[in-house]
Amino acid sequence: MLRYETTGLYGEGLLEGDSFDRGEISLAAERLQARFSSGELGFVNCPDIDPEAIEAWAATKLQEGWTDQVVIGIGGSSLGARAVLHAADPEHLRGLRTHFAENLDPETVDRLFSGLDPRTTLVVVITKSGTTIETMSQFWIAWRMIADAVGEEASHRHLVGITDPEGGELRKLVERHGWQNFSVPPNVGGRFSVLTAVGLVPLALAGYPIAELLQGARQVRERHAADLAGSWGMAAAEHISLMREGVDELVMMSYADRLSMLVDWFCQLWAESLGKARNRRGETVHVGITPIKALGVIDQHSQVQLYMEGPRNKHVTFLEVERFERDRVVPVSPALPDGLSHLQGRRISEIFAAELAGTRAALRREGRPTSRWIFSEISPRTVGSFLFSWQMITAMAGELLEIDAFDQPGVELGKKIAHGLLGRVGHAEFARLGQPAEEDLADPGILLL
Amino acid sequence: MLRYETTGLYGEGLLEGDSFDRGEISLAAERLQARFSSGELGFVNCPDIDPEAIEAWAATKLQEGWTDQVVIGIGGSSLGARAVLHAADPEHLRGLRTHFAENLDPETVDRLFSGLDPRTTLVVVITKSGTTIETMSQFWIAWRMIADAVGEEASHRHLVGITDPEGGELRKLVERHGWQNFSVPPNVGGRFSVLTAVGLVPLALAGYPIAELLQGARQVRERHAADLAGSWGMAAAEHISLMREGVDELVMMSYADRLSMLVDWFCQLWAESLGKARNRRGETVHVGITPIKALGVIDQHSQVQLYMEGPRNKHVTFLEVERFERDRVVPVSPALPDGLSHLQGRRISEIFAAELAGTRAALRREGRPTSRWIFSEISPRTVGSFLFSWQMITAMAGELLEIDAFDQPGVELGKKIAHGLLGRVGHAEFARLGQPAEEDLADPGILLL
Repeated sequence: MLRYETTGLYGEGLLEGDSFDRGEISLAAERLQARFSSGELGFVNCPDIDPEAIEAWAATKLQEGWTDQVVIGIGGSSLGARAVLHAADPEHLRGLRTHFAENLDPETVDRLFSGLDPRTTLVVVITKSGTTIETMSQFWIAWRMIADAVGEEASHRHLVGITDPEGGELRKLVERHGWQNFSVPPNVGGRFSVLTAVGLVPLALAGYPIAELLQGARQVRERHAADLAGSWGMAAAEHISLMREGVDELVMMSYADRLSMLVDWFCQLWAESLGKARNRRGETVHVGITPIKALGVIDQHSQVQLYMEGPRNKHVTFLEVERFERDRVVPVSPALPDGLSHLQGRRISEIFAAELAGTRAALRREGRPTSRWIFSEISPRTVGSFLFSWQMITAMAGELLEIDAFDQPGVELGKKIAHGLLGRVGHAEFARLGQPAEEDLADPGILLL
Repeated sequence: MLRYETTGLYGEGLLEGDSFDRGEISLAAERLQARFSSGELGFVNCPDIDPEAIEAWAATKLQEGWTDQVVIGIGGSSLGARAVLHAADPEHLRGLRTHFAENLDPETVDRLFSGLDPRTTLVVVITKSGTTIETMSQFWIAWRMIADAVGEEASHRHLVGITDPEGGELRKLVERHGWQNFSVPPNVGGRFSVLTAVGLVPLALAGYPIAELLQGARQVRERHAADLAGSWGMAAAEHISLMREGVDELVMMSYADRLSMLVDWFCQLWAESLGKARNRRGETVHVGITPIKALGVIDQHSQVQLYMEGPRNKHVTFLEVERFERDRVVPVSPALPDGLSHLQGRRISEIFAAELAGTRAALRREGRPTSRWIFSEISPRTVGSFLFSWQMITAMAGELLEIDAFDQPGVELGKKIAHGLLGRVGHAEFARLGQPAEEDLADPGILLL
């Protein structure tokens, strides 16, 4: 079971009603539906992917004696699989040890590749374009390492490419060398790709039950897709309405360590899809709701003071779990000190739930908008439903804002400057933009140490 | 070396000048100095703590054959040591294996305590009040586990308490059983306590050079404390001035994995100190700047789209490192594909630096305020300087806002409701507040799966 509830969005004078009427939400749903029907947007069809081919291939790999996989990708090519794997019960995973080569911190890169056994490691490289700097530079290190250990010819057996079916530099390499490979549907963008080979292949290799993940997504779609203006559309309208009232920060606070990386996945989806300078008519709008990751109960001791007393610009949405897989009891002997005796004999899960309820109620009483995502348990099905639901809410929110939720034009300039600074041909003008501005050079800053 | 620079705060029409004149900043500095002189605020003196007693004690423990420490604490009783330890070069640590028992997730708690060897594990329990629910409930589990393994009498040798020197329930236990213990100075609050026994004892047991950490803090204090209105006061004034212009989010984006937990430490310090409903005159102000954690380069592929194109409410401050301890080179053979050949033979650290420079320059060119914390290298000295500098900037920001930066009244209600729900005597009225409001019960939410 996965349920979504809002509390305190209305009734405190915050929202008199959505800033949208039902008619507007229905029109947005129609526009989105048309983009699904035309094939422009493919993520809606991802739950129909047949897991059997991937699972069968992964089973073969396990039989071949591989021990580790290093998954090389960044952003949408990494976050989905990382988040779902982090949400898995580690005792139930019976696949390859999985390492993600994501950040380009030179110490992290060196430590990761120094610790792998190249003879039994599969390299799964994921980039749709085939030119992602972070991914290709690490892939080149990985390939060299393996070729040095087992020889050029045998190295090809270690390599698995996940990329565009037709174009791009990685596709060319895959074809030239005959590497094992999977395709990313061209109509599915990176941050919407967790339920394609991008997420499913590393997960299957790690021993994760991808069929159940897809099933959860399919079931939630069956229940709600016929009425996009209903549940998902209403949720999207509430978020946008709050934004228009100045509530432009959405804190997602997980009360479960295993769900904490789903928040990172969500943060990319929400920020990159909805943070846009222009709408579809070309008007400058600078919209966006800042997603903020929080973890209960830890952030009760760090961020909740700000959420309770600071500016009224936060909506806190809680990720809650009704049943955990493991638990402990606070011992009754020796007796606990005064003022804590009510904890004796309590399960940790009960105390955890009381902390969550206390924080949620306190924010509610303070007139801060809150909502809840309630997981009956953390299972592949509830996780799949969660992922698909947020993809739909995000797409509906984009339609309500009349922006393109599926591009990311704002990251191009930084990329081009980086290429320029590294000497890419034709990028000298961008290299110049990467030099300090004159007024910055005039101020040397503060030498602290 | 540690240096702070701002770029693009002025000159784009964002800040015409600080909203404070030098006279106001000087007055704030005088008020803060008076609170230091009176002994009301003790964190300014923490760098003078003599590390030798703690180091000598920790050395004894290492000789006694302990293998692990489990550090039980939450928020300010945990974040400092966790952040500093995460910033350490793991190859240089020669102490106990360190486990933090912080979050109350029942699966995490059970997995942690199931994995420890109680015969050779030290339990370091940290709570100033002695009544922190999360800490004391986990401590009770730890103590029982050890007493069951080695007997009640021998268990006392495993326990180390860090708490108030005079009062509180943990102090009573420490005295009654004769546990090893250290004191938290009463005039140093949790989020300002990393340079007291709270941070230093676990760090010393882990083999971290605490003397160098303190030295870094002392050196930056020596250089700047005589002129609080200068560097730290100016930095604080810039942050508050930006807030008053609507820039109420401070993104701290670390381009170094080892520095990433310093951002979590900072997020508590900044949010809990400055997020306040009322000022010192009792007027309702609801101030605060939302701290947001980001990690480069990963968040270039997740959050930078929002930072570049979304609302103009973000100040991005970069944590930069000039020299890393390890590195790799992108191989020159086989040849890289077209459009990536400029990466061949480049060090990963060069590519990483270009990505950072590209992102910073792009934000700058887009008129978004940015600043830089430049570490010559990640060392105990630069880390100590960073910690102390932010404590001072935060304290100065509190003075400029005329709020109490050292309390956290907003978390009391949630705590009391949690106690009420768990049946604490005298808390029935709070238990009632924890029940769902009538209008919430009327709306069952959306059943997604």
